[in-house]
Amino acid sequence: MAVVGTGDAGRSEKWKARRDEIVDVSAGVFARQGYHATGIAELCAVNGLGKGAFYHYIASKEELLAAIHDRVMDEVMLGAERVAATGGSASAHLTALGAALLDVIHRYPDHVWVFLHEFPALTGDRAEQFRVRRRDYERRVEDVVRAGIASGEFRAVDPRLTARAWLGMHNYTYLWLKAEGPLSARDVAGPFAEIFLGGLAT
Amino acid sequence: MAVVGTGDAGRSEKWKARRDEIVDVSAGVFARQGYHATGIAELCAVNGLGKGAFYHYIASKEELLAAIHDRVMDEVMLGAERVAATGGSASAHLTALGAALLDVIHRYPDHVWVFLHEFPALTGDRAEQFRVRRRDYERRVEDVVRAGIASGEFRAVDPRLTARAWLGMHNYTYLWLKAEGPLSARDVAGPFAEIFLGGLAT
Repeated sequence: MAVVGTGDAGRSEKWKARRDEIVDVSAGVFARQGYHATGIAELCAVNGLGKGAFYHYIASKEELLAAIHDRVMDEVMLGAERVAATGGSASAHLTALGAALLDVIHRYPDHVWVFLHEFPALTGDRAEQFRVRRRDYERRVEDVVRAGIASGEFRAVDPRLTARAWLGMHNYTYLWLKAEGPLSARDVAGPFAEIFLGGLAT
Repeated sequence: MAVVGTGDAGRSEKWKARRDEIVDVSAGVFARQGYHATGIAELCAVNGLGKGAFYHYIASKEELLAAIHDRVMDEVMLGAERVAATGGSASAHLTALGAALLDVIHRYPDHVWVFLHEFPALTGDRAEQFRVRRRDYERRVEDVVRAGIASGEFRAVDPRLTARAWLGMHNYTYLWLKAEGPLSARDVAGPFAEIFLGGLAT
């Protein structure tokens, strides 16, 4: 996903890898102390870069924030594409979608924290691009609910409200589902799917 | 709920009412632009107070943040007490608890936004007090789930994980359930309860 700003067209693999590393390290700093409270000087220091070198990879602090959001959305959409490609019933689809989403939350706790707390700091095109991608994912969940109603697997619920219930249940795990925690994404995905599918059963 | 700081013991009703007003107005400012990005000078200006008068009501910016958190928790716990007092089945209890929680989120969108986004800014005793109250509410939800399992209304789910699923589904509505929005708390509470209770049915 191209971000608004520096862009990576024509950049070397080495440049891209180093940029990804900066995005990941910075996500941790933003998650711990907040986006607004973190300055460029500190980001340079934690990344072991001088100011000039830092700007060789990232055009601005907001571009960095957008890159963190993109990292999360790229992973979430990739998971959704993979799930959609496997086919199967609406129930199986919703179960797999939940497992894929929880897997991203579990693997990227810092990025997801920043994603869910700092999105109001995105402005202009970046804010709009983020809203569009987030809405796109919501629509995918709604479409699975619609497919389940059409196939008779699910009762006639409101697809939008139901997708929001599902998203809340899964997204909110970011507060306690941590890579170093006692529960794996799989430990949570199964029970959550049972509750949700039971709730939609005809 | 006594907050750490100024305290309201021995204060007049007029003082308390003015303080509440300051808490409410400031919640709106924090929700729009963030806690860290808001200075005392700005809080004085939006509240129409000089610095001296402001500190007559609020000892510090963090005390204000704690008061916003307390406002939300006071309302949420009051709702939970009211629901507990009415008795009834675990299903009825969980349904009423959800309606009460959504009602607070719907009535206090700014406070809840600040509550869910800025709680990491609380420090020391205030952070601890907040954690204890939040955990206390979680335990109430878990206890209702346990009661439902014991009575045979609910299947044998993990009470903690199930409470977290329920909390996520309800709390996450803060992103879209607004006082000025098209949906009332009641519009959402019914369908959410149906999904959740269906998911717990034996």
